[in-house]
Amino acid sequence: MKKIMALVLMSSSSIVSAQWQALPETAPAPADNPTTTEKVVLGQTLFFDPRLSSTGTVSCNSCHNVMAGGDDNRAVSMGVNGHLGGRSAPTVWNAAFNSTQFWDGRANTLEDQAKGPMTNPIEMGMKNHHAVMDRIKNIKAYKVLFQQAFGDHKMTIDQTVKAIAAYERTLITPNSAFDQYVKGDKTALTSKQQKGMQLFANIGCVSCHSGAAFNGQQDIKIGTPVLMKFPTFENNAYVKQFDLKADKGRETVTGKQADAHMFRIPTLRNIALTAPYFHNGKVSNLHTAVKVMAKTQLNRNLKQQQVDEIVAFLNSLSGDFPKQTMPRLPATENNTLLN
Amino acid sequence: MKKIMALVLMSSSSIVSAQWQALPETAPAPADNPTTTEKVVLGQTLFFDPRLSSTGTVSCNSCHNVMAGGDDNRAVSMGVNGHLGGRSAPTVWNAAFNSTQFWDGRANTLEDQAKGPMTNPIEMGMKNHHAVMDRIKNIKAYKVLFQQAFGDHKMTIDQTVKAIAAYERTLITPNSAFDQYVKGDKTALTSKQQKGMQLFANIGCVSCHSGAAFNGQQDIKIGTPVLMKFPTFENNAYVKQFDLKADKGRETVTGKQADAHMFRIPTLRNIALTAPYFHNGKVSNLHTAVKVMAKTQLNRNLKQQQVDEIVAFLNSLSGDFPKQTMPRLPATENNTLLN
Repeated sequence: MKKIMALVLMSSSSIVSAQWQALPETAPAPADNPTTTEKVVLGQTLFFDPRLSSTGTVSCNSCHNVMAGGDDNRAVSMGVNGHLGGRSAPTVWNAAFNSTQFWDGRANTLEDQAKGPMTNPIEMGMKNHHAVMDRIKNIKAYKVLFQQAFGDHKMTIDQTVKAIAAYERTLITPNSAFDQYVKGDKTALTSKQQKGMQLFANIGCVSCHSGAAFNGQQDIKIGTPVLMKFPTFENNAYVKQFDLKADKGRETVTGKQADAHMFRIPTLRNIALTAPYFHNGKVSNLHTAVKVMAKTQLNRNLKQQQVDEIVAFLNSLSGDFPKQTMPRLPATENNTLLN
Repeated sequence: MKKIMALVLMSSSSIVSAQWQALPETAPAPADNPTTTEKVVLGQTLFFDPRLSSTGTVSCNSCHNVMAGGDDNRAVSMGVNGHLGGRSAPTVWNAAFNSTQFWDGRANTLEDQAKGPMTNPIEMGMKNHHAVMDRIKNIKAYKVLFQQAFGDHKMTIDQTVKAIAAYERTLITPNSAFDQYVKGDKTALTSKQQKGMQLFANIGCVSCHSGAAFNGQQDIKIGTPVLMKFPTFENNAYVKQFDLKADKGRETVTGKQADAHMFRIPTLRNIALTAPYFHNGKVSNLHTAVKVMAKTQLNRNLKQQQVDEIVAFLNSLSGDFPKQTMPRLPATENNTLLN
């Protein structure tokens, strides 16, 4: 339980000092993977390339759709051959501001995360990373893109995920109504949204959902999971109704009972766009999600008006999505890698 | 057999008058669906929207990937829930120059074609077009896009497919090496490619693959299928090896035995990018495809050098792909339509 304590203490102090913060327009990159234009170009191309999956039908973008809210609006994702995933796809937008990746925080970095789905049999279904790199190496024009991005054409899995992570670090949505408000435009939020914002702070949502990304991970060292038990309070009908105890969360990674039902605190940026909600995607609308959260995490019964106000506030967290040019997927001329 | 005769006569005369033609940079639109920017914007958005499928995982672009050669590089496509299609997805690039759509020409127009996959249980799997429109109507921002495109917000299936078709009419790839050559730049093709071009004409490929799009459909009234029997010559091992008699082609549409194994003549534009080949996608590389075509359609045994030359020529038909901005898929705020 140490982690939870630490979290509560940290966020209590942050309420005083820096409660509301605009989203930064750039994300920090690790020392061994500085963001460059060439890497971003390669990474975007790889992100959209379905040939990184066994069937050639599933790209990173299939479940983390950047033309939308960065997820797939499904309860759980559908991978190769119609296989269903075990958890709801988290958004890739602003994922650069998470201190760890996946619902259970099992990947320290965006780079590590990108390795996972490729070889997951129910996601992209590749046999191993060697098979992934075989595919990529057989697509001639990738050699040039790797050369431009890394100064060589070794074309390794580490380079591949570095490029994907570099692209993902550009996926930031600044300038939401909330951000404009925080920066001084007091007309940017309606009075209903302002009431919701106050409520969000007063009832304690902000204890976990703090910082610019509302994920409690501000200034947390990359690689440190920031987790919370969900559900914390079980004395309510929601637990059964939405099957909230089925998934053991981080316990499935560490095997420790103390990690049972511990999940990474998700960002609330663009939350209005990423229904359905929670790790299992069992709640299809945000009003219900707010009610469930208040009850299971804060043991509070919100009135409908309060729910509406908080939802109105959460809708102010939808930001500007940068215009993107579609990548061209390099061809395997006169041949296919899929069969 | 009348159709085949007509075709041969037509192309013989076209060899004399207008054998080699550059690809037009715009496609004609039907009188009842003039191409407008607003329609193209709506159409592009719909084309990329996976919510037009039952599972929310398959968009038009899934099988007709415009970031690539306009298909999926698979033998047969994979629709919702991992279902496999019966034929290989034709490219959407330059489809505006086809006089009919689908391998068996069963849709007269791009508009008609767009209706098909949505409700095909193994493609996008929607129950009916009413269900498709229910989805679209429940995505608020589409109302604005329809209003801008059509001056009203009736939001009908006909408007939906008109917008998609309008977008598809912009998917043209001019300025290939071949086009530059035809327009007078005699250095645009290598001597090997020029030899292949000559061979392509001399041995008779051009009898079917004529006109700017190499699909025999130049100046053919939209709605008129231009078909050829494949295989025409069955006295070879390829028929069995690549299972060329399994699919009855147009007979499956008309029920007429005379239509057995009749298929629309596919464009050869960007053919190097759209492996595997043929209606069944059984041939994974272009060299083999050329050999098979020569034998089954012209009863010719090509030497390896001749095959190489024709393939080199066919590689000159890869054009310029217009830069595209990614669409933003309008959200269903605070809710999902998928479950």
